[in-house]
Amino acid sequence: MVPREERELLSRITGPRDLDRLDQEQLARLAGEIRTFLVEAVSRTGGHLGPNLGVVELTIALHRAFESPRDKVLFDTGHQSYVHKLLTGRQDFSKLRAKGGLSGYPSRAESEHDVIENSHASTVLGWADGLAKANQVLGREDHVVAVIGDGALTGGMAWEALNNIAAAKDRPLVIVVNDNERSYAPTIGGLADHLATLRVTDGYERFLARGKDLLERTPVVGRPLYETLHGAKKGLKDFIAPQGMFEDLGLKYVGPIDGHDIEALESALVRAKRFGGPVIVHCLTEKGRGYSPALEDEADRFHAVPVIHPDTGLPVSAAGADWTSVFGEEMVKLGRERKDIVAITAAMLQPVGLEKFAKTFPDRVYDVGIAEQHGAVSAAGLATGGLHPVFAVYATFLNRAFDQVLMDVALHRCGVTFVLDRAGVTGTDGASHNGMWDLSILQVVPGLRIAAPRDADQLRAQLREAVTVDDAPTVVRYSKGAVGPAVAAVRRIGGMDVLREPAEDTQTRDGSQADVLLVSVGALAPMCLEIAGLLDKQGISATVVDPRWVKPVDEQLPALADRHRVVVTVEDNGRAGGVGSAIAQALRDAGVDVPLRDFGIPQRFLDHASRKEVMAEIGLTAPDIARQVTGLVAKLDGRYDTEPAEVAGD
Amino acid sequence: MVPREERELLSRITGPRDLDRLDQEQLARLAGEIRTFLVEAVSRTGGHLGPNLGVVELTIALHRAFESPRDKVLFDTGHQSYVHKLLTGRQDFSKLRAKGGLSGYPSRAESEHDVIENSHASTVLGWADGLAKANQVLGREDHVVAVIGDGALTGGMAWEALNNIAAAKDRPLVIVVNDNERSYAPTIGGLADHLATLRVTDGYERFLARGKDLLERTPVVGRPLYETLHGAKKGLKDFIAPQGMFEDLGLKYVGPIDGHDIEALESALVRAKRFGGPVIVHCLTEKGRGYSPALEDEADRFHAVPVIHPDTGLPVSAAGADWTSVFGEEMVKLGRERKDIVAITAAMLQPVGLEKFAKTFPDRVYDVGIAEQHGAVSAAGLATGGLHPVFAVYATFLNRAFDQVLMDVALHRCGVTFVLDRAGVTGTDGASHNGMWDLSILQVVPGLRIAAPRDADQLRAQLREAVTVDDAPTVVRYSKGAVGPAVAAVRRIGGMDVLREPAEDTQTRDGSQADVLLVSVGALAPMCLEIAGLLDKQGISATVVDPRWVKPVDEQLPALADRHRVVVTVEDNGRAGGVGSAIAQALRDAGVDVPLRDFGIPQRFLDHASRKEVMAEIGLTAPDIARQVTGLVAKLDGRYDTEPAEVAGD
Repeated sequence: MVPREERELLSRITGPRDLDRLDQEQLARLAGEIRTFLVEAVSRTGGHLGPNLGVVELTIALHRAFESPRDKVLFDTGHQSYVHKLLTGRQDFSKLRAKGGLSGYPSRAESEHDVIENSHASTVLGWADGLAKANQVLGREDHVVAVIGDGALTGGMAWEALNNIAAAKDRPLVIVVNDNERSYAPTIGGLADHLATLRVTDGYERFLARGKDLLERTPVVGRPLYETLHGAKKGLKDFIAPQGMFEDLGLKYVGPIDGHDIEALESALVRAKRFGGPVIVHCLTEKGRGYSPALEDEADRFHAVPVIHPDTGLPVSAAGADWTSVFGEEMVKLGRERKDIVAITAAMLQPVGLEKFAKTFPDRVYDVGIAEQHGAVSAAGLATGGLHPVFAVYATFLNRAFDQVLMDVALHRCGVTFVLDRAGVTGTDGASHNGMWDLSILQVVPGLRIAAPRDADQLRAQLREAVTVDDAPTVVRYSKGAVGPAVAAVRRIGGMDVLREPAEDTQTRDGSQADVLLVSVGALAPMCLEIAGLLDKQGISATVVDPRWVKPVDEQLPALADRHRVVVTVEDNGRAGGVGSAIAQALRDAGVDVPLRDFGIPQRFLDHASRKEVMAEIGLTAPDIARQVTGLVAKLDGRYDTEPAEVAGD
Repeated sequence: MVPREERELLSRITGPRDLDRLDQEQLARLAGEIRTFLVEAVSRTGGHLGPNLGVVELTIALHRAFESPRDKVLFDTGHQSYVHKLLTGRQDFSKLRAKGGLSGYPSRAESEHDVIENSHASTVLGWADGLAKANQVLGREDHVVAVIGDGALTGGMAWEALNNIAAAKDRPLVIVVNDNERSYAPTIGGLADHLATLRVTDGYERFLARGKDLLERTPVVGRPLYETLHGAKKGLKDFIAPQGMFEDLGLKYVGPIDGHDIEALESALVRAKRFGGPVIVHCLTEKGRGYSPALEDEADRFHAVPVIHPDTGLPVSAAGADWTSVFGEEMVKLGRERKDIVAITAAMLQPVGLEKFAKTFPDRVYDVGIAEQHGAVSAAGLATGGLHPVFAVYATFLNRAFDQVLMDVALHRCGVTFVLDRAGVTGTDGASHNGMWDLSILQVVPGLRIAAPRDADQLRAQLREAVTVDDAPTVVRYSKGAVGPAVAAVRRIGGMDVLREPAEDTQTRDGSQADVLLVSVGALAPMCLEIAGLLDKQGISATVVDPRWVKPVDEQLPALADRHRVVVTVEDNGRAGGVGSAIAQALRDAGVDVPLRDFGIPQRFLDHASRKEVMAEIGLTAPDIARQVTGLVAKLDGRYDTEPAEVAGD
């Protein structure tokens, strides 16, 4: 058992300024209390554990050195904001990431201390640049400090921002590089090597030593030194040793600092804050600090955890087969069969299921860093060079590579397979993690084909179909979590699987095959079968079809639709421009004016809650949809003047 | 008149290997011939002049040092590929960028020497990384060389690629930085400063000098030195002085090289090619080299030119008012009225019309480099800081910032206005410049509003409406080129302008207000009025409405649609998920099952040709659409069994 110390100090922190009253010994004790709290609380709810254990001292120092919310304290990839929450009046973690509880990320609705809710990485420096520019234009003297991990620095956005930040030598901005040497996974690339070099140069020791020298030669001592430096940029320049890349870009560099030494951190941050221009403070932290199961896990599985036992770190309930592992296993088989198949991940080898592939074929897997753009464009190069790349990525993160999917992969007709994990409603991670965009934005990409497998067998089969396409991009998208039982097909029409046909004696009054054609997308097949069953009880006959490939629309779908009185599409994706819209357009183009209703996710940002709760809230459940379809059929029958007004997605 | 020298040498170059027969004097003469050819040819057709004049010697040296097409010679932002075309068997520039003529970019259909057709910047290093990886996996010894401008290095994709390229010390890859010190415009940012530092350090001279020293101390002389270096990485390492940032990242740096000295270039490229790992060759070139109108123009207007007089560089025909300048003028007025309005451009201050704003309000304009992601995310920061940013960008380039528009601007409900220039079919620049994606992918963004002004008055008015929205992103999108005459509204319904109403005596048989509701998007208003006129002649009555704001769909549109027998939407955007689809969905949601036909750009990549030719080819003309609508109405009348099968967009 983790010792359950009293939370004597923590419980008395109601806001950042309460930290000012504590001395160094108390601050160290507070850090210990926070760590204990985090392990206990996150074990119970699941959440991001490792990153937050790593930034306890850093967050305390940030809130001592800066005055939030007047100063803007910004976190990249806000999963490292739990400590920040604890210090800004949010200590009830009992419903972390659950409906009605604290978000797993910063949230403007929760606190005035939160600015960036976005959990896509590498954004913080861009935000900081914008906020610093606004301060300058409006003549404000407030400060901006941005915390970014070494992993997030591999993202192109970070580079674009650094280049802009460095351009204005007189615009104050403090960048804290939280260097834990692994970010999501062991960080790769030239930048990682460079950071490693900086880590061993002991620049900070030199910095301190030289500062001390200077102190002895000048009449100011101790705290007044800060005042001397304030506004005296050249003075600080002399303090800080030139430090490679960042200095080359024109950014002052301070570091490396021990990221678990509150006093050293606070001192460096205060100096940086008073410098008057852009400064990088390079902090070395240990991800999972103080929690041995995390520290001992090389695969970084404690980055984000399910509900675990706090002592052992083992999951409380063993999960069944999930989509990710089905994909991972099949990739290993494919890799054995075809030497031209290579895999790409954007810093998420384990979460997207490529660990086994990487172990089996270490020379055929590329971790490009948090760099989805590069994942896609280098895939175009790999394909042009004669290989077939499979880029596995969370659905929501592919948005970062939209231009590259379109202009590099599709325009050049490259055979690249994108595997989109965590598609649809993911729930607890909140708005920015739901994979509800892909089936819409990818519709515009010429030549691109999208598979939405309904079960594990189909995932395996459709992945195999996808990698045979060598003159166009293919996409295989599936949900988060456990994969359901196999759903059998009755027969196949074109490329589509008919999952259910109406009984032969249910032909409708006007001679149609059935009242309703239900078009099911991916994992929603069981829900669609349930809808059909509910309609049956209302005397409404229904066919259920799984198109399997949802783009392009199957050539035989319009004819099938034409044999029904109404078409209903159900997808786990935003309604705007999704599969339903594409099918509606295909029907219009074929001159089939059968009424259609498209059910999907309403086009708004969804608050965090369990997937089930979210689906219920947005009306994407079998009873909800069955009720609305019943109303529509009644309207067609002339039994009512109008169908019910509400549509899932309003 | 530019002296019309004989093209004695150029005309005998049928492929890169013909260069091998020429000595240095002949190569210099060839460079002169190419320059004369470029000025004459591009003056006649319009095209990218400045960039190509800058890379004449570099391209010659590349094709001497590498063996295309076995080796892959890659150009970033392929507008600098004209010289490459001349050296690879394509010397008929008479129809450059015109239908049936040479593309203004590399084109795989034109030549086996072309690899990347994409004209969005900063992609080449990603392509090169992929191709180099493929060579490694497949055990090929072919070379990959990528040419990238200093401007394009400001793009995040370049950084992501550099980081990956640097990670593999044993994967050969030559990166040529074509440093003309201005790219699209004076390059900004920390990187530009760093490149400037490198330019004056004379690293290349030191490199040569140290090489000479070593030569004298070693038994190999002259050419055999290359063999010595080949495979002897440590040897080369000693030759090359450590050079700041690139070296810090682990990339060997050679330079700076005089980019107009063919011999020096070739020598450096051959050394780099034989190094056996990633090398950066830093070349200094002069954009517009040898053409004084270009060299003397500070605004870099010779980057891309219309048809000009070859001697003076002045446009042959003066253009009338265009969308861009209407926007530019209005921004200056808005800037005077509101101090909180700031402007953002991604390295295209002049092309997007922000030059005057920048001159008037130099402290309120941000050129972020070729960095659309940063443009969008820093805009979110600016808005959160209390300003209202207007980010003006070509429609096709906004694709790069899709994730940031969605997750940074929209999720945080930031008041940012995106002004999309060159929306719709642009024509001569080919597939990657058509702005045919925005009205589709932006449909998914919650809260975002899109204005599509139909004329200059509406552009001014809607821009003003857009910048008053402070809790959501707004978009104003317009076409390329001349703005047409004002189109008056008959009356307004909700936020929509009715442009034409049917005569009162044309009420249809079933009591509808008219047969057809034509929904016109943006600059297509005159075309829609023409369609209505053509329908009139067929006895088909039509209302024409301009929704002005095309997202969200106006609340009153379904009711208006319901008073017609058929709804027809016409937009200068891809059909998939566009405005037509959004309106169709809104009608479905309102239970209005009036048949709808949506006309727009077919979802495929369009070959280069004039806008008019492209529009005709895809059937987006008044006669084409009128004919199809006539067929549809005839079908509703029961006059035909079926409507004509073809639909614009098949």
